[in-house]
Amino acid sequence: MQQRSEETRSKIISSAIRLFSGRGFNAASVDDICAEAGISKGAFYHHFKSKQDLFLSLLDGWLKTIDNAIEAAKDKPAPEAFTQIAEAFPYIFKTAGEGLPMFLEFWLQASRDETVWQASVEPYRRYHKYFTALIKKGVDEGSFVAVNPELTARMIISTGMGLLLQSLMDPQGAKWEKVARDSVKMLVDGMLKK
Amino acid sequence: MQQRSEETRSKIISSAIRLFSGRGFNAASVDDICAEAGISKGAFYHHFKSKQDLFLSLLDGWLKTIDNAIEAAKDKPAPEAFTQIAEAFPYIFKTAGEGLPMFLEFWLQASRDETVWQASVEPYRRYHKYFTALIKKGVDEGSFVAVNPELTARMIISTGMGLLLQSLMDPQGAKWEKVARDSVKMLVDGMLKK
Repeated sequence: MQQRSEETRSKIISSAIRLFSGRGFNAASVDDICAEAGISKGAFYHHFKSKQDLFLSLLDGWLKTIDNAIEAAKDKPAPEAFTQIAEAFPYIFKTAGEGLPMFLEFWLQASRDETVWQASVEPYRRYHKYFTALIKKGVDEGSFVAVNPELTARMIISTGMGLLLQSLMDPQGAKWEKVARDSVKMLVDGMLKK
Repeated sequence: MQQRSEETRSKIISSAIRLFSGRGFNAASVDDICAEAGISKGAFYHHFKSKQDLFLSLLDGWLKTIDNAIEAAKDKPAPEAFTQIAEAFPYIFKTAGEGLPMFLEFWLQASRDETVWQASVEPYRRYHKYFTALIKKGVDEGSFVAVNPELTARMIISTGMGLLLQSLMDPQGAKWEKVARDSVKMLVDGMLKK
């Protein structure tokens, strides 16, 4: 029973990603998602309160990769923590794969809907705090030169977002996994005390 | 007559930005744009071949700010060229203003339409080439340490895109003009030969 419920949930999620990517969030209705997934509306509402609730679950699932990497890097010295978090990037790039439209739908919904906006902006603010603290720790423990932690954290997040967006726009334009890995190395090397 | 034609064109453009941002590119028809602008369909097609043609003009207009800054920085030593191009950023941030939905519409259209995709990806590739050459020049003229020009150029573009996206998502989250200026300074300082 538990297993069947999990299967239904994952059917709903993959159908929703397909429809949101293809038609957009507004054009895809709960009815469309149920039809695509081959399930009843009752089953849908057993798993999700609303289309928006489902949408926010997609965002959460995606952020979990980054959160797990951050959690695993806890208690490591700052330079190692960066390298370890960077290991999550190839996975992020791979799962993002054909996901550009879905991604843009998140941001577009965020720009049009207060609840989605809150849910989308909160992680950036959280990651900014996290990286600021991590860089500060690196400076305090003597691994890093005296960079501006706030600004450097902002640049790290910007680089990550920019690389992701470019990789989605132009998958053939570069070896993105390698570019991401090399970028983190360059950023960390730039901070390391020689 | 010339002046009236210019006025019509700018009415079409501002109506289109409003409608594309509010409803999305697909949902806003040429009829809607004409009604919003208070002009005839004949006047529309005098200025633009199609809705897509208008859309691509919006993209071009926006890129012109960056292109002009690049053109003006020609023949300057690399560190000065960077600083000068960075001067265009506050303007970009200001004009982007409420433009997030429009921006995302560009990327979303690009992911769904080959012609828009070509037009959207081409500038990134072009800027990547430009910054790669500029950094290489800086290394050759002895201003910069021996960084990897390709990778560093990629990071500069990523940082710019990421900052722009964050500033649009979260206008109150930071003093973005200052963050952009400080980021360029930090990137250039990181490359400068001490």
